[in-house]
Amino acid sequence: MSRLDVFINRMVSQRACLDFAIEQTRGMAGPVFELGLGNGRTFDHMRERMPERDVYVFERKVESNPASTPEPEMTILGDVRETLPQSLERFGPTAHLIHADLGGHNLEKNVQFAREISPLIEPMLAVGGIFVSSDRMFFTSLTELPLPADAIEGRCFIYRRDA
Amino acid sequence: MSRLDVFINRMVSQRACLDFAIEQTRGMAGPVFELGLGNGRTFDHMRERMPERDVYVFERKVESNPASTPEPEMTILGDVRETLPQSLERFGPTAHLIHADLGGHNLEKNVQFAREISPLIEPMLAVGGIFVSSDRMFFTSLTELPLPADAIEGRCFIYRRDA
Ligand SMILES: C[S@@+](CC[C@H](N)C(=O)[O-])C[C@H]1O[C@@H](n2cnc3c(N)ncnc32)[C@H](O)[C@@H]1O
Ligand code: NI
Ligand code: NI
Repeated sequence: MSRLDVFINRMVSQRACLDFAIEQTRGMAGPVFELGLGNGRTFDHMRERMPERDVYVFERKVESNPASTPEPEMTILGDVRETLPQSLERFGPTAHLIHADLGGHNLEKNVQFAREISPLIEPMLAVGGIFVSSDRMFFTSLTELPLPADAIEGRCFIYRRDA
Repeated sequence: MSRLDVFINRMVSQRACLDFAIEQTRGMAGPVFELGLGNGRTFDHMRERMPERDVYVFERKVESNPASTPEPEMTILGDVRETLPQSLERFGPTAHLIHADLGGHNLEKNVQFAREISPLIEPMLAVGGIFVSSDRMFFTSLTELPLPADAIEGRCFIYRRDA
């Protein structure tokens, strides 16, 4: 596999998981959270396929393409290790879709970071809410779901709060 | 279409066109040219699927991922408007596969640039050689080919020297 193949697999998987989560949570009230804006491509996808829902973006430093930069009032600036606990106080356990793509190039660091933020994300999901991630997470109360068609094993992960 | 959709279409088209060109030119002698290194993903794809061929990379400023950075002797540093004419003197009309992904975000500038470099690329291709591009080009002696399955109209272009 070339780096081009790996990259395409990752993007296609991300889209398949997002589309699955969007369908599964259609009609649920409460906010949607995008953790990590980056270029803004997945944010653009989420707001386009869910125009009826509020998509808040958590980001340390906004450097997205101008075509997909969120409104200031939808941007939650800062390190997610601080902004997630603050947002739990603000929103309560109401999120019905959270997407995280926070990882960098260092695999070991990504695992460590996933361990760190798993307990911060877990309480934010409403019952029936879905969490989509590029990294394997360390949850104690969420159920890992099988991936939809088109998604590639190990490239994305889906979790749901069942109760 | 979200920016994620557009991006996936572009990457998938690029790969489909490259794979088609690699198959069509299999067994031909002469160098392969990658115009524009960027992150190095398509370069990585080309060298992985053509380990038997010499892939030279034309780039102004190397900023690729270390996992896909070409050897110094395979890197032709500088503005392609200067390095293409120099390489024509060095290699003659021997290239059998050239891939260009030089465009930026400004569509109008991309068209202007494609006009400028078309006459510089055209004489470098050997008979039977194929040129794959993310932009429509302005050639006078090359034949535009239909796209392979998986490639999306308008996202990539394929040209061949027939004589
Ligand atoms: C890989 S990019 C996201 C790409 C995005 N999914 C897209 O499609 O364009 C990761 C982003 O997460 C952000 N990030 C990483 N760690 C963070 C942290 N601890 N707090 C807030 N943002 C963080 C980075 O600044 C970067 O913009
Ligand atoms: Ni490989
Ligand atoms: Ni659109």
